[in-house]
Amino acid sequence: MAARVGLWMVGAWGGVATTVATGLSALRQGLSAPVGLVTAKEPLASLPWADWGDLTIGGHDIRETTYAAEAQVLWEKSRVFSPDLLNRVADDFAVWDQNIQSGVLVNVGDRIRSLAGEKSRSYLAESPLQAIARIRKDLENFREQHRLDRLIVVNVASTEPTVDPALAELDWPQMQKRLGATEPIKLPSSSLYAIAAFECGASHVNFTPSVGTDLPALSELALIQGVVHCGRDGKTGETLLKSVLAPMFAARNLQVNSWVGHNIFGNLDGKVLDDPANKATKVKSKDHLLTEILGYKPQTLVSIEYIESLGDWKTAWDHIHFEGFLGTKMAMQFTWQGCDSLLAAPLVLDLVRITELEARLGGKGLLPFVGSFFKSPMGCSTPEFASQYQQLLEWAQLRQSQFEKK
Amino acid sequence: MAARVGLWMVGAWGGVATTVATGLSALRQGLSAPVGLVTAKEPLASLPWADWGDLTIGGHDIRETTYAAEAQVLWEKSRVFSPDLLNRVADDFAVWDQNIQSGVLVNVGDRIRSLAGEKSRSYLAESPLQAIARIRKDLENFREQHRLDRLIVVNVASTEPTVDPALAELDWPQMQKRLGATEPIKLPSSSLYAIAAFECGASHVNFTPSVGTDLPALSELALIQGVVHCGRDGKTGETLLKSVLAPMFAARNLQVNSWVGHNIFGNLDGKVLDDPANKATKVKSKDHLLTEILGYKPQTLVSIEYIESLGDWKTAWDHIHFEGFLGTKMAMQFTWQGCDSLLAAPLVLDLVRITELEARLGGKGLLPFVGSFFKSPMGCSTPEFASQYQQLLEWAQLRQSQFEKK
Amino acid sequence: MAARVGLWMVGAWGGVATTVATGLSALRQGLSAPVGLVTAKEPLASLPWADWGDLTIGGHDIRETTYAAEAQVLWEKSRVFSPDLLNRVADDFAVWDQNIQSGVLVNVGDRIRSLAGEKSRSYLAESPLQAIARIRKDLENFREQHRLDRLIVVNVASTEPTVDPALAELDWPQMQKRLGATEPIKLPSSSLYAIAAFECGASHVNFTPSVGTDLPALSELALIQGVVHCGRDGKTGETLLKSVLAPMFAARNLQVNSWVGHNIFGNLDGKVLDDPANKATKVKSKDHLLTEILGYKPQTLVSIEYIESLGDWKTAWDHIHFEGFLGTKMAMQFTWQGCDSLLAAPLVLDLVRITELEARLGGKGLLPFVGSFFKSPMGCSTPEFASQYQQLLEWAQLRQSQFEKK
Amino acid sequence: MAARVGLWMVGAWGGVATTVATGLSALRQGLSAPVGLVTAKEPLASLPWADWGDLTIGGHDIRETTYAAEAQVLWEKSRVFSPDLLNRVADDFAVWDQNIQSGVLVNVGDRIRSLAGEKSRSYLAESPLQAIARIRKDLENFREQHRLDRLIVVNVASTEPTVDPALAELDWPQMQKRLGATEPIKLPSSSLYAIAAFECGASHVNFTPSVGTDLPALSELALIQGVVHCGRDGKTGETLLKSVLAPMFAARNLQVNSWVGHNIFGNLDGKVLDDPANKATKVKSKDHLLTEILGYKPQTLVSIEYIESLGDWKTAWDHIHFEGFLGTKMAMQFTWQGCDSLLAAPLVLDLVRITELEARLGGKGLLPFVGSFFKSPMGCSTPEFASQYQQLLEWAQLRQSQFEKK
Ligand SMILES: NC(=O)c1ccc[n+]([C@@H]2O[C@H](COP(=O)([O-])OP(=O)(O)OC[C@H]3O[C@@H](n4cnc5c(N)ncnc54)[C@H](O)[C@@H]3O)[C@@H](O)[C@H]2O)c1
Ligand SMILES: NC(=O)c1ccc[n+]([C@@H]2O[C@H](COP(=O)([O-])OP(=O)(O)OC[C@H]3O[C@@H](n4cnc5c(N)ncnc54)[C@H](O)[C@@H]3O)[C@@H](O)[C@H]2O)c1
Ligand SMILES: NC(=O)c1ccc[n+]([C@@H]2O[C@H](COP(=O)([O-])OP(=O)(O)OC[C@H]3O[C@@H](n4cnc5c(N)ncnc54)[C@H](O)[C@@H]3O)[C@@H](O)[C@H]2O)c1
Ligand SMILES: NC(=O)c1ccc[n+]([C@@H]2O[C@H](COP(=O)([O-])OP(=O)(O)OC[C@H]3O[C@@H](n4cnc5c(N)ncnc54)[C@H](O)[C@@H]3O)[C@@H](O)[C@H]2O)c1
Ligand code: NA
Ligand code: NA
Repeated sequence: MAARVGLWMVGAWGGVATTVATGLSALRQGLSAPVGLVTAKEPLASLPWADWGDLTIGGHDIRETTYAAEAQVLWEKSRVFSPDLLNRVADDFAVWDQNIQSGVLVNVGDRIRSLAGEKSRSYLAESPLQAIARIRKDLENFREQHRLDRLIVVNVASTEPTVDPALAELDWPQMQKRLGATEPIKLPSSSLYAIAAFECGASHVNFTPSVGTDLPALSELALIQGVVHCGRDGKTGETLLKSVLAPMFAARNLQVNSWVGHNIFGNLDGKVLDDPANKATKVKSKDHLLTEILGYKPQTLVSIEYIESLGDWKTAWDHIHFEGFLGTKMAMQFTWQGCDSLLAAPLVLDLVRITELEARLGGKGLLPFVGSFFKSPMGCSTPEFASQYQQLLEWAQLRQSQFEKK
Repeated sequence: MAARVGLWMVGAWGGVATTVATGLSALRQGLSAPVGLVTAKEPLASLPWADWGDLTIGGHDIRETTYAAEAQVLWEKSRVFSPDLLNRVADDFAVWDQNIQSGVLVNVGDRIRSLAGEKSRSYLAESPLQAIARIRKDLENFREQHRLDRLIVVNVASTEPTVDPALAELDWPQMQKRLGATEPIKLPSSSLYAIAAFECGASHVNFTPSVGTDLPALSELALIQGVVHCGRDGKTGETLLKSVLAPMFAARNLQVNSWVGHNIFGNLDGKVLDDPANKATKVKSKDHLLTEILGYKPQTLVSIEYIESLGDWKTAWDHIHFEGFLGTKMAMQFTWQGCDSLLAAPLVLDLVRITELEARLGGKGLLPFVGSFFKSPMGCSTPEFASQYQQLLEWAQLRQSQFEKK
Repeated sequence: MAARVGLWMVGAWGGVATTVATGLSALRQGLSAPVGLVTAKEPLASLPWADWGDLTIGGHDIRETTYAAEAQVLWEKSRVFSPDLLNRVADDFAVWDQNIQSGVLVNVGDRIRSLAGEKSRSYLAESPLQAIARIRKDLENFREQHRLDRLIVVNVASTEPTVDPALAELDWPQMQKRLGATEPIKLPSSSLYAIAAFECGASHVNFTPSVGTDLPALSELALIQGVVHCGRDGKTGETLLKSVLAPMFAARNLQVNSWVGHNIFGNLDGKVLDDPANKATKVKSKDHLLTEILGYKPQTLVSIEYIESLGDWKTAWDHIHFEGFLGTKMAMQFTWQGCDSLLAAPLVLDLVRITELEARLGGKGLLPFVGSFFKSPMGCSTPEFASQYQQLLEWAQLRQSQFEKK
Repeated sequence: MAARVGLWMVGAWGGVATTVATGLSALRQGLSAPVGLVTAKEPLASLPWADWGDLTIGGHDIRETTYAAEAQVLWEKSRVFSPDLLNRVADDFAVWDQNIQSGVLVNVGDRIRSLAGEKSRSYLAESPLQAIARIRKDLENFREQHRLDRLIVVNVASTEPTVDPALAELDWPQMQKRLGATEPIKLPSSSLYAIAAFECGASHVNFTPSVGTDLPALSELALIQGVVHCGRDGKTGETLLKSVLAPMFAARNLQVNSWVGHNIFGNLDGKVLDDPANKATKVKSKDHLLTEILGYKPQTLVSIEYIESLGDWKTAWDHIHFEGFLGTKMAMQFTWQGCDSLLAAPLVLDLVRITELEARLGGKGLLPFVGSFFKSPMGCSTPEFASQYQQLLEWAQLRQSQFEKK
């Protein structure tokens, strides 16, 4: 692998992105074992992935900060990383900081807008088409400057409010037209970034619950442009467990009466999700699963609350009330104490590797075999984690056999 | 289905068996939905199972009691069943009580022997071969008296102490010979019951961690006699969850550092397992799994403690300490509050249905596709619950297509 | 003790009241040990309490039902009581049912009004003063019919929405006047019941978070009438634990950063509290405590959610995030699985006994020594459970010595 | 306060002692708020405590290491402290390291002996009297070298195996004689250290479950020598919670049927307690409490298991099964995730302050008012945390009023 690959993160200085940067630098320097990386484990590990050393980080953010500062916050509030590690990744941080550009604030809602710094706010008046053009320019510059062979855009920006369902009724020509109208449709930034990416031939991964590429018009555009994409909303905690546990209740024909999930955490993502408009997007992404797996709708409750002292430590309590033989009610409870960004970042790197490989092999359109990575997997035929993971293994086997043939 | 099927339970008046009896009577009378029965859910539900009405219960026990008395204890101590239900199954109870014979006490260890009543103790001096002969006679009488077309023996007796590993080195002719020696080999009752079953053409399900049929000699005998069998140790609680959750940690390449499981419960099974000799058998059955699934051995701890006030409510607390990206340590904890006998009984009925169907179709030897039912599944190629369940579904599909062809 | 004591419950057919009735009948017949009764334990036990046999139940409710029906629901949904016990209390139930009158719906809010049956709805148009008069008549009839020596009114009715704070600025003459105005002040039913009670010389216990007697005007009236009263909101679950645990964090100088409490349950009380207006009253009652005990305000969160399958089983999960020496963050979590009505009912009986004793001894006004029973104890000088309990013991000792002197 | 105070720790380089050293240095330099220090909170805070700057650390240990090395292990395994803090306390560490002498191995059992380094092993053959003499010399040297006004010896060494109960039958003259016999009595090191301390006029705090001063002969000696002492076994986790929660169950007359506590942790203390001989001492110290508080003995279970990955993070799960009104069984569970050394160290500093103050004021014998600090408090009249804390407050008030008078 001597190809040069650009990893462009939207939300480039956020918790997940900062952890991606820290981890990538650590992996490049051999400072850390690839624990938590799905692609680092056999049988996937032997596919011809891009080398860590071939990746360069760039991105957009609306806040003005640095990797060093953001990593320091994670260390101080959540005791992740270590001062020693942060020293050793400082050089990479300084280089990558140079590649971060001012983000787009079109239709992001009040809460996100309130986070924006001076520079991004200076673009507040820009139209959707102007925003797309600006993003494209940033991407092209990045590509040229670093002589990239391939470019993957990953959305790890704050969760946007939910969008008008009517957006799903437009095809790409209609959408394009309505974007240029005097009163343009209210397409949120997550989709504008994706359009820009597609238009300049970049692949796209939507790691957030924001709508991003999850619209027919964008699927169409991806095919037209011959790029690959996948998403929606990285599956790292409670929902991961739901997709693992609920199939057991189904297989055993145990009747789930209620499934209550309370999530508390205290990072910036939590602060954004504390706004009901933004939270709705996340809750929706977390709540459809059980019905799909069980085949009926138990009473469910998903709460997400911002508790500052927890920092990046997402703590979830789930109470599952089920009924067994002869109407006997039983209960399972679990608590999950995971560090959100540390769970997410390796998956982002996995998805970049997978997407890059498929792009390299000339794939296009939606990647349907990465359902195990997402809460609301686009194009995936099954909601069960084990089956989703099986699909990934089967894809790997297929690719493996193709490479072996060559 | 007009065939008559005998369900012969060893440990016939125990908690699991009493719940099987209660549940079977309730199902026959349409008093309860088949919740908790795997075979009652599509796609399995449409296989041509034996009707509940075709089943008759018999068995061996070493204690002298009645279904009514045992069910009353479960109700009083654990608030399962309901007085109303118990009234309505009383007639079936009375009939089935008549079919329970005195059990065998050969090599069962002190703890189990201490439970035995007068009648069973009167056989204390019997030799292994005498025991086998007596069991056979009881089985033959049952078969004749109820004009049974098929007979399934299910071991739901107390967990025996672990056995001499040298027993696994004998083939059937050697074992047979050594059973008749003046100092016969120390084969425990669970295996004697199985031998008797096989010898009179009955199928066998070992729902306990006792060795039962899990010896090469007995596998050989099953093939010689053309009977089917399966086992070992019903998977109803913590171990079920391990086989569901551990694959997730493996798939995500999260390093499990330690997995601690504490189980507390207060039924008769718990009292028997409170003896270190008997507990060893159970802990062994619960503890091999993680290494198989993860591919390495994390520090594990499994404790099982008798806490009287809990009755049949098995409460388990598991603490899973794992390491993610960049060495970050995280934790998952769960508590499981399940009613043991109520979780086990429907699986016993499922296994009877499945075994009966295979016997009816002329199968012989080990059933390898029921791994999802057992903690230490004999002949099963995978330790993961989802894959095990997949094997069951594939078997069902195969059978379904065969039946449809006809 | 040969005095006859009336126990008049507002919310007479609710979960708590039905459990009070069941328990009182069981205690009268010696069917149950007095577990859960504070006054049944030494040193309190030897005070000259009213005998269980001296108590007669009556009350108001807005729904039309019977004790047998309500107890049956508790049994079926929550597996509390037992059919056997319910048979044995059936006669008392039938007698007491006769003493239940139609309740008052003045200013109770939409949610409660929606529960009302025909009879109570027929009084929908009544004015506050008419309501008071009707309640008084019901109380007087009860007193006469049963030749009662003393009458205790206990509010165990559904939680009302919060009230206008301006009500706390009125003295009794002003309130009385404004109650008779053409546009009368919006005093809720809980207070109207209390006024009626006071006016006919009955004592009052407010076991709910509804405002009831917690207004200066009503305190004034109690003194005028020479009756005793106490309240507010029985302390049976999470808040009890807060008042027990928070003092430990304070005493150890451990800094509580956040205390999150999630409560789920599925009884009628839960359904009423599912209305934001009613819930606000309860959350307020649960949330002031920590600041009082700790001396600073940690981030707190109290959620109460209606999860039908749980029935009367209130399940609470609390996550306490605290900071120790050298800034080290630690956590304590607890889950509480308590049966709400069964925790509440013995406290109601305790409070009736205590109130009756004080009334008998000629006390008047607020009882300040029963703070340990309440979430928002009126007139109590300390928020810590241990100190509150100490106050109760000191009162008991004082009374004991007085009785011994005699 | 210009007096110079020596804090001599037995087990000077252990986890608790290292945290005491780190914390003391941080407090002296004003690097940390005194969170977790009971004496730093009003009303105690205003007593005339020794200044942090007046304290000098010395001690005995059997291992050869340094504070820097031990603190580094705590940081690496358990993520407590921070590299930055460790830099800033390095100078104090270096000075205090000089004051640590080789420990005594008389009657410490196999497990502890296996930890000893070269230097301490060179004294393996020493007799009890020789050991006492050596300890005295070390203490005298320390006192002289640092011109100390007062000296407090604190036992924070590994938990010893339990001792022969007959030791409790000796008075001091008998013990002294039997210590010098050719076959001397088997008095463990914890007591030899205490004897040496008393003999040279130092006060003593026993923070461990080892027997230490908890023998009539030693109490006698303390009075003879006019020194103060207290102990036994710092109360920092599960037992603290038991002494806080059990009084609630008692006060509410709720019947505790069983109380199960499982403790897991992975520090050196855990490794020592993994030996059944040593564990017995700890379990005994943890298990007597409930019976004392409740007035009856529920079924109890206390397990302590060494789980390496947890490091200093003691994680406890407690399951409390209790019975309420009408025989209803309910449950409370809690998990405690505390960092053991960080919970213990401030209490050690509190006890040093309190002991020093009492010694300064000319006190002698057992301090009965510090029961809240200990699992098995010597001379304390109540097992309930709230009452124990009350005793501390009353003592503080008394002293305060004495100081104000002057
Ligand atoms: N385990 C996880 O952390 C996890 C799992 C699944 C999904 N996610 C999602 O990933 C996203 C990132 O999570 P996080 O914890 O890093 O959040 P974060 O708040 O730390 O980071 C988000 C970043 O996006 C930036 N941003 C917001 N709007 C932007 C815009 N329009 N253009 C450019 N930048 C913008 C913010 O300034 C911030 O730096 C969130 O949507 C979250 O819901 C996270
Ligand atoms: N969820 C579950 O309950 C579950 C799950 C997996 C396995 N198991 C196993 O199933 C078995 C039964 O569990 P249970 O809860 O019903 O236990 P139990 O103690 O209530 O019943 C066991 C019965 O076996 C009888 N018995 C003992 N030795 C016998 C012998 N030699 N011959 C005949 N009868 C004998 C006893 O008298 C008793 O009636 C145990 O081995 C248990 O470990 C149970
Ligand atoms: N552990 C506990 O159960 C507990 C603890 C503290 C406080 N409380 C409070 O006690 C009260 C009763 O709880 P519950 O579980 O019995 O609730 P519930 O809903 O079962 O019973 C309330 C009863 O009050 C009746 N009611 C409502 N408004 C009325 C009115 N204006 N006049 C007369 N009757 C009326 C309802 O019809 C119902 O029968 C609630 O306010 C609850 O918050 C309960
Ligand atoms: N929260 C807590 O940490 C806590 C609470 C209560 C009691 N304790 C007790 O405090 C003690 C110390 O705990 P820790 O976590 O620091 O243990 P640790 O194992 O880290 O430290 C014990 C130290 O004692 C030394 N030691 C052992 N025997 C000795 C001897 N005879 N003379 C001199 N030194 C000796 C060891 O070398 C070690 O350095 C233990 O007994 C523990 O049970 C601790
Ligand atoms: Na069982
Ligand atoms: Na209630």
